[in-house]
Amino acid sequence: MKPPLTPLVASLPATVPFVGPEKQERDRGRPFAARIGANESVFGPSPKAVEAMRQAAPEMWMYCDPNNHDLRQALAAHHGIAPETIVIGEGIDGLLGYTVRLFIEPGQTVVTSAGAYPTFNYHVAGFGGKLVTVTYRDDAEDPDALAEAAHRTGARLVYIANPDNPMGTWHDATRISRLIEAMPEGCILCLDEAYIEFAPESAAPDWDTDDPRVIRFRTFSKAHGMAGLRIGYLVAAPETAAAFDRIRNHFGVTRMAQVAALAALEDTDHMASVQASVARARDRIAEIASDNGLAALPSATNFVTIDCGRDGDYARRVLAELLERDIFVRMPGIAPLDRCIRVSAGTGADLLLLAKALPDALAAAG
Amino acid sequence: MKPPLTPLVASLPATVPFVGPEKQERDRGRPFAARIGANESVFGPSPKAVEAMRQAAPEMWMYCDPNNHDLRQALAAHHGIAPETIVIGEGIDGLLGYTVRLFIEPGQTVVTSAGAYPTFNYHVAGFGGKLVTVTYRDDAEDPDALAEAAHRTGARLVYIANPDNPMGTWHDATRISRLIEAMPEGCILCLDEAYIEFAPESAAPDWDTDDPRVIRFRTFSKAHGMAGLRIGYLVAAPETAAAFDRIRNHFGVTRMAQVAALAALEDTDHMASVQASVARARDRIAEIASDNGLAALPSATNFVTIDCGRDGDYARRVLAELLERDIFVRMPGIAPLDRCIRVSAGTGADLLLLAKALPDALAAAG
Repeated sequence: MKPPLTPLVASLPATVPFVGPEKQERDRGRPFAARIGANESVFGPSPKAVEAMRQAAPEMWMYCDPNNHDLRQALAAHHGIAPETIVIGEGIDGLLGYTVRLFIEPGQTVVTSAGAYPTFNYHVAGFGGKLVTVTYRDDAEDPDALAEAAHRTGARLVYIANPDNPMGTWHDATRISRLIEAMPEGCILCLDEAYIEFAPESAAPDWDTDDPRVIRFRTFSKAHGMAGLRIGYLVAAPETAAAFDRIRNHFGVTRMAQVAALAALEDTDHMASVQASVARARDRIAEIASDNGLAALPSATNFVTIDCGRDGDYARRVLAELLERDIFVRMPGIAPLDRCIRVSAGTGADLLLLAKALPDALAAAG
Repeated sequence: MKPPLTPLVASLPATVPFVGPEKQERDRGRPFAARIGANESVFGPSPKAVEAMRQAAPEMWMYCDPNNHDLRQALAAHHGIAPETIVIGEGIDGLLGYTVRLFIEPGQTVVTSAGAYPTFNYHVAGFGGKLVTVTYRDDAEDPDALAEAAHRTGARLVYIANPDNPMGTWHDATRISRLIEAMPEGCILCLDEAYIEFAPESAAPDWDTDDPRVIRFRTFSKAHGMAGLRIGYLVAAPETAAAFDRIRNHFGVTRMAQVAALAALEDTDHMASVQASVARARDRIAEIASDNGLAALPSATNFVTIDCGRDGDYARRVLAELLERDIFVRMPGIAPLDRCIRVSAGTGADLLLLAKALPDALAAAG
C-alpha cells in the first residue's frame, strides 16, 4: 500500500527549504570552523535568559501556558500595544505556516519576490497556493511591483521582509506604509521584521493594530540570540490575531522558550551590546570584502551580502571553496541575486577565519 | 475589513481543546496547591536531562538540526528499528496535526471514540475532516467498533490510544494487532502510545515498520517528564515517514528539546524510578478513592480515573469542589465517561492534599 496522501500533498516536492549546517558537517565528515551562514546571533542569548533557562530546566515536566499570557503581556507593554493583537508561535516559520493556512485555499494567489524567504514559499506550496513573484530592484524588494502584482493577480497575501533577507537592504517606514495602503481589498501584507532590531529606527512603521491589512512578524531567533528555542510572534488586528486560535498548536511553544523570551526581553543592555557587536561585524565584513576587491551591500541586518562581481556560477564556486575551508556561509538562490554570498555577523575569531580563507577561495574559484 | 479567512477556517469554532491550569489560576486569583490534572510527570525530567539543558542553554543561538539526526539515531538504536521510520516533531499534538494534513481532505471521514483525545479531533476539524465516533465499551476504547466504523464510513484515518486517555484502560498487543489487520484498504491507524511506558509490556505490539497501515506515536512529555519541551515522535513505514518532510516545520523542534531528549533516553535508571513512583501513586490514588467509597479504574498510565458513581453533573460538581480546594484535576468530557474524574500520579504531598480535600469535596457536591 502506498501512503494514501491527499492529492495536494502527493503533488508536493520532497525537497526541503534549507539544509542545516549539521547535515553538511556530517556529509563533509568534519565540523565547520566558523558558523556564519544562517544569520544566527553568535553573540548568544542574554546571560539573564541563560540563567532563566537553567533555573527553569527542572520545571520542564509542566506543559507551557497555551495562552502565552505572561509573554504577551510583556510584549504588549514593551511595544505599547494590546495583548489581544499578539500571537506567540513556534518561530516566524511556524507563524507563516499558520498564516498561509488561515487565508489561502488551493489555487489562490500569493505574491512575493523571486529570491525572498524560501520557507514562506514552502508554506504557500504546502497549502496549494499559487506563487506569483516579482523581481528585486537594485538588490531590494520592490514595494511598487509587489502592490501592482497583488492587484493584477487578485492576491490574498503579499510577503515582504523589511529589512530584507537575503540581501540585507531595507526600506523606510513611509515606503512600507504606502505598501500597506496599496493592498487590494481582501489582501493582507505579511511584513516580516525578523531583522528589525538591526535596522535604523526609521525602518519600522508606528504600530497601528487597528489596520487589518497587515500582519507583522517578529522573532527571538535573531537579535535575541535564541534561534534554537523557536519562538516568535506576530502583531495583527485583534480579530485577525484571534483567528489563529482556531488552528494553532496551542501547546506548541515550549515552556523553556516562554521563560527565556521573557528574560531576554527585559535585558535591554544585552540587546544594545548585540546591536553594537553586529554593527562592528558588518563593518569588518565590508572591510574584508573590500580588501579582496569585492563590494559589500549596505545592510540593516545581522549579515552582509557580498557582491562577488560576476555571475551565479562564480559565486557558487566561491561559496563551495569557503565551505571547503570550513567557513559555513550561504548565498541567494536566484539570479541576479546569486552573484552574491551572504555572511552572518561573526565573532572576531569567525571573521579572522573568513579574512584568511576568502583570498584563497576567490583564487580557487578562478 | 473582516479577516479574509478561508471558508473552512471561518467555519471553525473559536473554542480551544484545553484550558491550561495557568489560565485557571489567573481566573481564580490564586495558584493550585496540587497540579495533578494534565497527566504531567511530577517526578520531573531525568537529572541528566536537566544537566544537559543547563549545559546547552548558552548554545541556544543556534538553530536546531532540522534532520533531528542524533535523536533519530538514538531512538532507532533504542527500539531496534531504522532511523528512516522515525519522525521527530513538536510533541504528539504537532505530529497528529501533520498526520491529518497529510491524509485528510475536506469531507473525508476519520473515526475515533466519543470522549477520546480532543486535540486529535481539533486537528481533524481544522482540516475539514468529518469525524465519526464510536462509543467506549466497558470504559475502554472498542477496537471492533472502530474497525467496523472505518469500513462502514470509508474512513481514511482511525485513532486509538493504547493505553487510553482519559480512562487509563488498555488492550493487549494481540488485540491492537488485530485492529491493524482490520484496517480497510487506504486507511491508516493512528496508534497513540503516549502512556506506553506505564503499561505492561504485553500492551505494545512488536515493531513492524514495513506495515503501512499504522503510525505509532510516542512522546517525551509523559514518562520522560518533559511536557514543557514539546518533543515527540512517530514510527511509520519509511515511505509514510518521508512524506512528513513535505509539510512539516523543519526547524520546529527546539535544540533544547533535542539535547534533553537524547540525555533522557539514555537515563534508564530515571525511567525505572519514575515507573515505580507512578505505580505507587496509582495505588495510593486507588486507596484514597476506596477510602471515600469510590471505585478507581485499573490504569496502565500515569493517572487514575475515579468513578464517582453517579452522573456527569455530579462528577462535574466534585471536580469543581476539588478545584475550589486548590486541587487541579480534570475529567472526561462525554457521557457515560463523565461520571469519572481523572487524577494524575502526584507526589506524596500532592496526594496527601487530595486525600484531605476529597471527603469535603464529595460532601459539598451533595
